[in-house]
Amino acid sequence: MTSNQPEATVGDLGEQGILETILPLLDSRKANLGPGDDAGALSVKSSEVLVSVDTLVENQDFKLVWPSGLEHRAYDIGWKSIAQNVSDINAMGGTSTGAVISLSLPASTSLEWVKDFAQGIAEAINSLGATELTILGGDLGKSTEISVTTTVLGECAHGKILRSGAKPGDSIAVAGRLGDAGAGLEVLEHSRDANTWNRAVRRIAEAQCRPVPPLGSGPRAAEAGAHAMMDISDGLVRDSARLAKSSGVSIDFNRQALQTFATRLTPAAQLTGADPMDWVLHGGEDFGLLATFPAGTEIPEEFTVIGAVTARSGRRSQVSVDGKLVTANSGFDHFN
Amino acid sequence: MTSNQPEATVGDLGEQGILETILPLLDSRKANLGPGDDAGALSVKSSEVLVSVDTLVENQDFKLVWPSGLEHRAYDIGWKSIAQNVSDINAMGGTSTGAVISLSLPASTSLEWVKDFAQGIAEAINSLGATELTILGGDLGKSTEISVTTTVLGECAHGKILRSGAKPGDSIAVAGRLGDAGAGLEVLEHSRDANTWNRAVRRIAEAQCRPVPPLGSGPRAAEAGAHAMMDISDGLVRDSARLAKSSGVSIDFNRQALQTFATRLTPAAQLTGADPMDWVLHGGEDFGLLATFPAGTEIPEEFTVIGAVTARSGRRSQVSVDGKLVTANSGFDHFN
Repeated sequence: MTSNQPEATVGDLGEQGILETILPLLDSRKANLGPGDDAGALSVKSSEVLVSVDTLVENQDFKLVWPSGLEHRAYDIGWKSIAQNVSDINAMGGTSTGAVISLSLPASTSLEWVKDFAQGIAEAINSLGATELTILGGDLGKSTEISVTTTVLGECAHGKILRSGAKPGDSIAVAGRLGDAGAGLEVLEHSRDANTWNRAVRRIAEAQCRPVPPLGSGPRAAEAGAHAMMDISDGLVRDSARLAKSSGVSIDFNRQALQTFATRLTPAAQLTGADPMDWVLHGGEDFGLLATFPAGTEIPEEFTVIGAVTARSGRRSQVSVDGKLVTANSGFDHFN
Repeated sequence: MTSNQPEATVGDLGEQGILETILPLLDSRKANLGPGDDAGALSVKSSEVLVSVDTLVENQDFKLVWPSGLEHRAYDIGWKSIAQNVSDINAMGGTSTGAVISLSLPASTSLEWVKDFAQGIAEAINSLGATELTILGGDLGKSTEISVTTTVLGECAHGKILRSGAKPGDSIAVAGRLGDAGAGLEVLEHSRDANTWNRAVRRIAEAQCRPVPPLGSGPRAAEAGAHAMMDISDGLVRDSARLAKSSGVSIDFNRQALQTFATRLTPAAQLTGADPMDWVLHGGEDFGLLATFPAGTEIPEEFTVIGAVTARSGRRSQVSVDGKLVTANSGFDHFN
């Protein structure tokens, strides 16, 4: 393309032209039937399939340009749409096997944007190690704001691990990042000038745009005998309260164990003046795994024990840190 | 609710409150694991699962108030989001078994709207006869325009029927409506006053808002030995051209057979001055089935033979009516 030509838009190309751009970037070879017919088709090895869906909407889940001045690449939107869904399958102890993607775009969106988006999807699948995941199909349509809905299918080789299985006496442990994406969001939203960031701050901002769920750790935890598991998408306190409520237990975290995660966020805290422990307790979207294991379990080494499951002292499940109650005051609700 | 109280909105309720309203309206009892954990889980009887996804966006796929003055109910949006997806599974010769639904809404949306939407989903599942379909989960989020993405899973008992299997000498037949939804769209868009419509016109407008894919006819066609099948979502000519191209054949329709469908649309044509045959040839979103059957097949009785599959006369697949070429000039492209 010469610089004199206006950039091609999805409105210029139409559905067929967009598909001809996207599909070669996505690997559908492992599908029984990939994109192009009325539905895709996928082999299932076991007698059960897992399904999860998540949507990313412009200005709700990402901003094309953050207040810090950082531009949010289409690549990152593609990446995150895969990451958060394969995380849900991982959190059941499963492996992702197939996905369909629905993309709604303004007609003025450039073809380059769409390519970058598809590359982010392909690269997330490769880099996160979702090697059994194949793209089965999708939908394309027009909208005024960018919206991406990804549905992922998966299977469990070791039985599915629910939120409801935690027992008093279990250890509670985390794999993957904790607080990084929350710190990244604050840096993107409130820090003035992305150009002045050092490498440590850039890495933290990137954790918001390009989260890295610990794939493989879900099946390993299931195989090791985890009682309960979920991914941390809305913050440690809010999500652990859900796990505690589902299981009819309480959870007490160990501040010293959490401090290790907070310390890693010091560069962002220095920039914004925040207490990094707030990100560890309340930051969402790292898609780390929260799992409980019975005493004596050989817990997979990538998990860090951060507390214990206890019996409820009253009728309600509680979450505490060193015995002091915490609530999800800054947890995330899409509508509040 | 008294008339003095402002109507509750989804912003007032938050995610949890919305879910508590929606979930009791949807039947998830047949799921191995329904909404509430990281992923849903569904039993699979065969070794293959089918997947299809479609999105409906405000002002693209529906208008909350049509130019005719007719209000588009949330119920109809829920209905159509199910109908168009179960149609894709039907078009493979399959039966829909599970669905996940992602709903993006402005915070100002009323709780009543959300209830009506969920009732439309539940009623579509019942009325269309998708009796094996269960809701496995979903996602809720904020947006400036209403957007619904539904993903449906299914299975084939008689093998899946692709678009690519048509052979010269096959009969081509249609089950379900043809042109009704296209006529309905024109009535909704261009007719002046919905209050003046007679019952026949109302029925045609309703075909756009509440399509009725002929579920069951897909598996029956597969069992009868259909060579190729697809649903008609973008218009008979456009979709049959896709089938012809996939199969490397041409298709010739019989005008007299199509006339039967056009005649039914006379009440709408009288209102708008259109030629009803244009709706039959180019109208989309009826989600009728287009199938080809080899000579001698006992074609299921709900199918009407409307033409024949022929060998290509040149290098390109062609679609004709009584031997005269037709093209999808008024077919639908989301981006054009």
